[in-house]
Amino acid sequence: MTSPTPPTIGALGRKAVISREDVIAAALSLLSSQRSVSSLSLREVARQAGIAPNSFYRQFRDMDELAVALIDLAGSSLRQIIGEARDQARKSADTKRSVLRSSVQAFMQQLKSGDKLLHILLREGSVGSEAFKQAVDRQLNYFEDELRLDLMRLSEAHNSDLYEPALAAKAITRMVFAMGATAVDLPEEKLAGLAEQLVVMVRMILVGSQHLQAEQSE
Amino acid sequence: MTSPTPPTIGALGRKAVISREDVIAAALSLLSSQRSVSSLSLREVARQAGIAPNSFYRQFRDMDELAVALIDLAGSSLRQIIGEARDQARKSADTKRSVLRSSVQAFMQQLKSGDKLLHILLREGSVGSEAFKQAVDRQLNYFEDELRLDLMRLSEAHNSDLYEPALAAKAITRMVFAMGATAVDLPEEKLAGLAEQLVVMVRMILVGSQHLQAEQSE
Repeated sequence: MTSPTPPTIGALGRKAVISREDVIAAALSLLSSQRSVSSLSLREVARQAGIAPNSFYRQFRDMDELAVALIDLAGSSLRQIIGEARDQARKSADTKRSVLRSSVQAFMQQLKSGDKLLHILLREGSVGSEAFKQAVDRQLNYFEDELRLDLMRLSEAHNSDLYEPALAAKAITRMVFAMGATAVDLPEEKLAGLAEQLVVMVRMILVGSQHLQAEQSE
Repeated sequence: MTSPTPPTIGALGRKAVISREDVIAAALSLLSSQRSVSSLSLREVARQAGIAPNSFYRQFRDMDELAVALIDLAGSSLRQIIGEARDQARKSADTKRSVLRSSVQAFMQQLKSGDKLLHILLREGSVGSEAFKQAVDRQLNYFEDELRLDLMRLSEAHNSDLYEPALAAKAITRMVFAMGATAVDLPEEKLAGLAEQLVVMVRMILVGSQHLQAEQSE
């Protein structure tokens, strides 16, 4: 997930033409662990992008639409990264544990790269407009759904059914995102330890779901 | 956790003397699902409390100290409520499932009551100053630690050891808080369903932790 580079402002001042990506890049460059999307003003983003506030409206209806675009972009990029990691793991060795480990590692790797889009998704999900929160929820649901399908494929291959796979996928997704939100500020040398913790925590959920299913069918 | 009532502003305008609780109540009354603590200004809080901005400093060094106070208050109140629910459940029937169920129900009950302190704790943990984030982390660690002790007591009573009880407690706490953050905006009739989901999700973690321990010692 490479962030678009912020538009450079020429010596002549404001730019006449600006793309959606330029506005998004300008917004991203203003965000930090101390500044949330909801604290950005349209005026600020326009200034950062080197455009007049009015030009902003050529790309986005309002700041809310920009915030939703950021979330959608963050979600789709992360899904792609994790999907690739899973495919890799699946090809190399078809064991549950390696798929789990490589998904968690891809997630932590992305966190470590300082990907601001991911940081927004992890940290700002629960404060903002209705539209913003719905966008975050939509992305979480996509993750949960893909994970559920993956878990069901894996458990079929291993002949060990899961109890309520949708809830197992939800538990994993929410927990990983919550842990990820705190990981954003950790120094790099602590991330490996956190990844190991996450792998154990996810295994607890998977093993629990398998055993609840086994009890159920006894 | 009853929120302190906002101070009433007399016909004569600004109040001369104001307590810490009054300032906290004024800040709480400004917060909503669309407005975060980090978006509040000192001026606004002072106005709401009916005091001059300068009087604010008699109670708090800055807005950051106020934000940390809100988190500490939220955490200690919630711990008390959940602690009481667990004690009740322990007295009435010493089964793991009832302790789990009543803890989750106490949590959802508190959410439903529209407790703004709890909403802050759930939603704003990951955006804000270093001091603010540390305060949230401290509260989460308290929860995890109490839960870990509780889990170990229960598993001893039931003769079923847990694998990495600290990680099980962490997984449960982070997941419940993440689910709680999305629950804040749910209509009341959906909360019961969510509580049932949470109970299943927490059971997955507990059962998983037990079975991983059993595998370990085989």
